[in-house]
Amino acid sequence: MSVEKLQRYREQMRTELDKVVDFWQKYSHDTQYGGFFTCIGKDGKIYDELKYVWLQGRQVWMYCRLYRTMERFNKPEILEAAKSGGAFLRRFARIPNSGSPWKCAFCLTRDGKALKVQRTIFSECFYVMAMDELARVTGDKDMQAEAAQMMDQLVHWVRVDPSGLGKPQLSGDTPVCSMAVPMMLLCLVQQLTEARSGEEVDKYREVGGWCVKQILQHLQRGGTAILESVSSEGKELPGCAGRLQNPGHALEAGWFLLQYGLENGDQELQRTAVDKFMEIPFLTGWDKEHGGLLYFLDVDGYCPTQLEWSMKLWWPHCEALIAYLMAYSHTKEPALLERFSQVYDYTFSHFSDAENGEWFGYLTQQGKVTLDFKGGPFKGFFHVPRCLYMCEKILDSILNKQES
Amino acid sequence: MSVEKLQRYREQMRTELDKVVDFWQKYSHDTQYGGFFTCIGKDGKIYDELKYVWLQGRQVWMYCRLYRTMERFNKPEILEAAKSGGAFLRRFARIPNSGSPWKCAFCLTRDGKALKVQRTIFSECFYVMAMDELARVTGDKDMQAEAAQMMDQLVHWVRVDPSGLGKPQLSGDTPVCSMAVPMMLLCLVQQLTEARSGEEVDKYREVGGWCVKQILQHLQRGGTAILESVSSEGKELPGCAGRLQNPGHALEAGWFLLQYGLENGDQELQRTAVDKFMEIPFLTGWDKEHGGLLYFLDVDGYCPTQLEWSMKLWWPHCEALIAYLMAYSHTKEPALLERFSQVYDYTFSHFSDAENGEWFGYLTQQGKVTLDFKGGPFKGFFHVPRCLYMCEKILDSILNKQES
Repeated sequence: MSVEKLQRYREQMRTELDKVVDFWQKYSHDTQYGGFFTCIGKDGKIYDELKYVWLQGRQVWMYCRLYRTMERFNKPEILEAAKSGGAFLRRFARIPNSGSPWKCAFCLTRDGKALKVQRTIFSECFYVMAMDELARVTGDKDMQAEAAQMMDQLVHWVRVDPSGLGKPQLSGDTPVCSMAVPMMLLCLVQQLTEARSGEEVDKYREVGGWCVKQILQHLQRGGTAILESVSSEGKELPGCAGRLQNPGHALEAGWFLLQYGLENGDQELQRTAVDKFMEIPFLTGWDKEHGGLLYFLDVDGYCPTQLEWSMKLWWPHCEALIAYLMAYSHTKEPALLERFSQVYDYTFSHFSDAENGEWFGYLTQQGKVTLDFKGGPFKGFFHVPRCLYMCEKILDSILNKQES
Repeated sequence: MSVEKLQRYREQMRTELDKVVDFWQKYSHDTQYGGFFTCIGKDGKIYDELKYVWLQGRQVWMYCRLYRTMERFNKPEILEAAKSGGAFLRRFARIPNSGSPWKCAFCLTRDGKALKVQRTIFSECFYVMAMDELARVTGDKDMQAEAAQMMDQLVHWVRVDPSGLGKPQLSGDTPVCSMAVPMMLLCLVQQLTEARSGEEVDKYREVGGWCVKQILQHLQRGGTAILESVSSEGKELPGCAGRLQNPGHALEAGWFLLQYGLENGDQELQRTAVDKFMEIPFLTGWDKEHGGLLYFLDVDGYCPTQLEWSMKLWWPHCEALIAYLMAYSHTKEPALLERFSQVYDYTFSHFSDAENGEWFGYLTQQGKVTLDFKGGPFKGFFHVPRCLYMCEKILDSILNKQES
């Protein structure tokens, strides 16, 4: 592929990222109570004032990351917005909890009252991501310590004792390993160790190694399938839950593993990341008739029971773009750039909204927008800007090497 | 409309009911552990062995109701299947619970181990329905008393103190009245009072009156909208949750209210049931472009955040058929029979599977089958046979009157 084509991709990523940042700056900031609105209609109108903690944490993280690592976003208004979100989270997200010292709500009212709490680890994960990245730009050591403390709590829940999460123990509820858990922890390990060293970092590195092993357990059936959930012994589970495949999630795991393999010089892991976690989801998940990645699949070809299984969601396409571009940048295999191009064409022609900016999130199998909002309970300022940001960075590095 | 047309409808309902009963008798019975498989593929194949308690209870109820009130189903094999399901439920569905003496699991393994428990009342509701109806056919007084005891527990959770359900108290979580709760209780009141009298029945009648008042609170905006959730003062709630409409649910409430109004000679309630709970969901929920009832709508025209909002599900169509036919049978307004015909044409041409029997449950907005199983975590032996059974009974009564 020509340098010109790669330059065009970079230009497109850059322009789109600017537009997406503009959209959220313009519409999502709650100047009265702090934090961010996330339920935002196609033209920017707030259609619900609830504040979802995952999305508050992700937006703080994304703003800080842009501020810290991209010169054109190193602007006071970006930092101020991130600080406002961080203050809102610190003040309201943590709630009293009987089982553990720390628990974060899942959803808050506009003025910060807790509305829902989940019995999972994810609100806390995004809280850690936000606090650590914000501490990196503000230099706030208390905040960094708070992130570290919450991380210890997370590792305890995952590896030692989950009872503080508040789930009742039931006789038929055998432990299930969901790929999301080690993926999230690995992401946090990368967050907390970046450009740091010392005892704390060694501790996290051990956690990172454990996460990688856990993720690799999801490669099943003699290396031919990535399954979303396995038993705690790394075996296939019975029924629908055991057969579930989530191609977008496998692709995200793919670039997490590739990144980890590169950082640690583990070539075998790099190959597994590309050949298994990126190739299998494409072969099974790409819709040959209508294009785009299906949301869920059953490895034995049964119909998944998730009503949205055949829909096309924005975030698996974001993860696919990062995965294939990162894989291409390290292997230089043209087939991987071809994969990237194919996903790019579908993604930019179906999700991106030229009229009002930002991306639609939810299409029918046939590719028609079926939920037309730009932000909702699970779609905030995260997957789209992270994808555009990472793709721009990777294209920079490819093009800089070619030019030098 | 001609008598011949009504006779054809009755014939179709009867034939279809026979086929549906055959399907579940053939494929769903677990002869090894008792109870019923509910995850059944399009051709009858079991694709998951989990046993969902809602669906176990509903299947017991439906078998017993058919056995008790329709001569051609008064057969030992139907009774035996119901008893097997009832025994499975009694043995395994109730689980230890810290807050309340009784709690039912939501989902069990094939051999009856609890896998999930919800912090709502619905598993218990279907348990009561099953036990009371089974007690009616077996004459088991203990079982009837158990149903009554569970009903007391339900009323306590709903009207006195929900803390036993296990939901944490959160500062932003103001009490919300979901229409499902009084609808379910009203359904149980009708179950527990049918052809009975005495003190217990008077107590239930008071509960029934309360349920009707609660359901009527969901008629909002000057009588122009049925909203799925309102505040405990009967006011509209803010945001998406407050604006949510569920046309199928409103139609189901419609025939519950009409039935109650007829039993109690309340003509005003009968009119409200028809003019509001049946007419509004049709005007707002019927898809004028593709036909069929949409699953969710936002009363102000925003896009709902439920991914499945635009899909066509089988059960709202079942409820619509019952509602319009019941309303026609009592009012003799031809427009209501027209509504019935319109829903009938869509339903039988889209959901019913001529090849393998039973109905598909989930279609795209355009009417294409997108989940092709016959039974799943929320689709069992209930809405389809209840609809066919009730429509056959109503058509019997219309035709018998015309013939006499």
